[in-house]
Amino acid sequence: MPRRTISGFSNPTVKYLRSLRDKKHRRREGKFLAEGLRLLTDARENGRLPETLVMADVRDEHPLLAALIAEVESRGGEIVETSPEILGKITGKDNPQAVIGVFAEFDTSLAAIDREPGRLGAPIWLVAQAVRDPGNLGTMLRTGDAVGAGGLILIDECADPFSAEAVRASMGAVFTQAIAQAPWSEFVGWLRQGEGQLVAASLRDGVPYRGAAYRSPCFILVGNESRGLPEEYEAACDLRVTMPMLGRADSLNAAIAGAVLAYEVRASFEG
Amino acid sequence: MPRRTISGFSNPTVKYLRSLRDKKHRRREGKFLAEGLRLLTDARENGRLPETLVMADVRDEHPLLAALIAEVESRGGEIVETSPEILGKITGKDNPQAVIGVFAEFDTSLAAIDREPGRLGAPIWLVAQAVRDPGNLGTMLRTGDAVGAGGLILIDECADPFSAEAVRASMGAVFTQAIAQAPWSEFVGWLRQGEGQLVAASLRDGVPYRGAAYRSPCFILVGNESRGLPEEYEAACDLRVTMPMLGRADSLNAAIAGAVLAYEVRASFEG
Repeated sequence: MPRRTISGFSNPTVKYLRSLRDKKHRRREGKFLAEGLRLLTDARENGRLPETLVMADVRDEHPLLAALIAEVESRGGEIVETSPEILGKITGKDNPQAVIGVFAEFDTSLAAIDREPGRLGAPIWLVAQAVRDPGNLGTMLRTGDAVGAGGLILIDECADPFSAEAVRASMGAVFTQAIAQAPWSEFVGWLRQGEGQLVAASLRDGVPYRGAAYRSPCFILVGNESRGLPEEYEAACDLRVTMPMLGRADSLNAAIAGAVLAYEVRASFEG
Repeated sequence: MPRRTISGFSNPTVKYLRSLRDKKHRRREGKFLAEGLRLLTDARENGRLPETLVMADVRDEHPLLAALIAEVESRGGEIVETSPEILGKITGKDNPQAVIGVFAEFDTSLAAIDREPGRLGAPIWLVAQAVRDPGNLGTMLRTGDAVGAGGLILIDECADPFSAEAVRASMGAVFTQAIAQAPWSEFVGWLRQGEGQLVAASLRDGVPYRGAAYRSPCFILVGNESRGLPEEYEAACDLRVTMPMLGRADSLNAAIAGAVLAYEVRASFEG
């Protein structure tokens, strides 16, 4: 596919790209944006290539950018060059990263998750219920990557893991972690068809998180930022654990709770 | 002090309050804003009262709001009533919280920190070096509160812990945790005048964080979001620990790293 140059703000491609800042349009188009050479290189090294690469016509050349362009072109992807001003309009930022990729959203059905220990063998999965802050979701993806999790499962109405903020906070983990979205009942049905211990980070009661009897694969369930988990969801878990709260606050940030628990589970598996 | 009503957008008090959204003005005035009844109640219950309370003239009455108003008035604080539109202008949000407090910034010198185990006895202190995201600082304050830390010490050029975003993310912990700000050399000089183990969350090398020999009071040092800690800072630490990174990413979010480490230190002190 030949390179294209866009020079007008009212170009339909510019409007289309801008629209992908909006969740409704992302969902309808099944696409999302990732900005910056570092993130796009993470994606490429993980076998994820953008369908379209949009970059400034005035730019510093960089071997990683050259590699990215070459690979996108060799796979039949589209290269679009435009002005820094138009790039800024697309991203809504004054200092846009000099390169943006348009990616097809991944299959986020539970069926796309392979939890067979024989193949992927991920001992930990993070599960977020109604987590509303995209930064928290991105941070959970990043933590999952670090702790060797298989991915992040989003239950009920969560923030969009493909929003610019989540993608940025994930530091590339959006391309390494599996992501699934499902309502609670569907998730539980899927979970119970195979191996898997469901552990709730509970604000109510439970055993101390330290030294609890975790089993692999362990699904760590973290609830909404202000309400925590619904009572009936906790009741459906195999294990409820609590973390010490020594101060005035009654809860931790959702991403923090998930991370402290995930590192504890990981350590317990290592004996 | 009598109640005042402000009805004009160009009122100097409105301009003054708006200016406190800006770090430069906060610093010059030595004031900051906290929004919402929950946060202001956390402050009150912790003995921190706003100098000025600004609220909508159309509002739902609430016993906690009545208690707040009564206590501010009894201490000679000022009560300002205004329209929801003007409140929105002050906060820069469409849906402003119905009540805003103006607080005097706390003393953030190291001298104001009491680390004598005999009195405060905090076994853990969090130390952030050049952490630029106010949300991360707020989350660190919140985690510190939960884990029983004494406070958060900000080294070098950090984000402003009194910004609206940090105050919000702290979930009230900005009123319970001590906060100090100092350049590195001043901090190290202060630290070495007394008891205290300085532990670096290192990206380079160190012993595994799990089971390391932590000593109370333990000062947990976390570095900048993208660069981590300067090498010479790590070298000055008593202990360098690393966390497992099993995926592609080479680091954790700063607030996550601090939290996982703080909970580990806490657990080690409990034996």
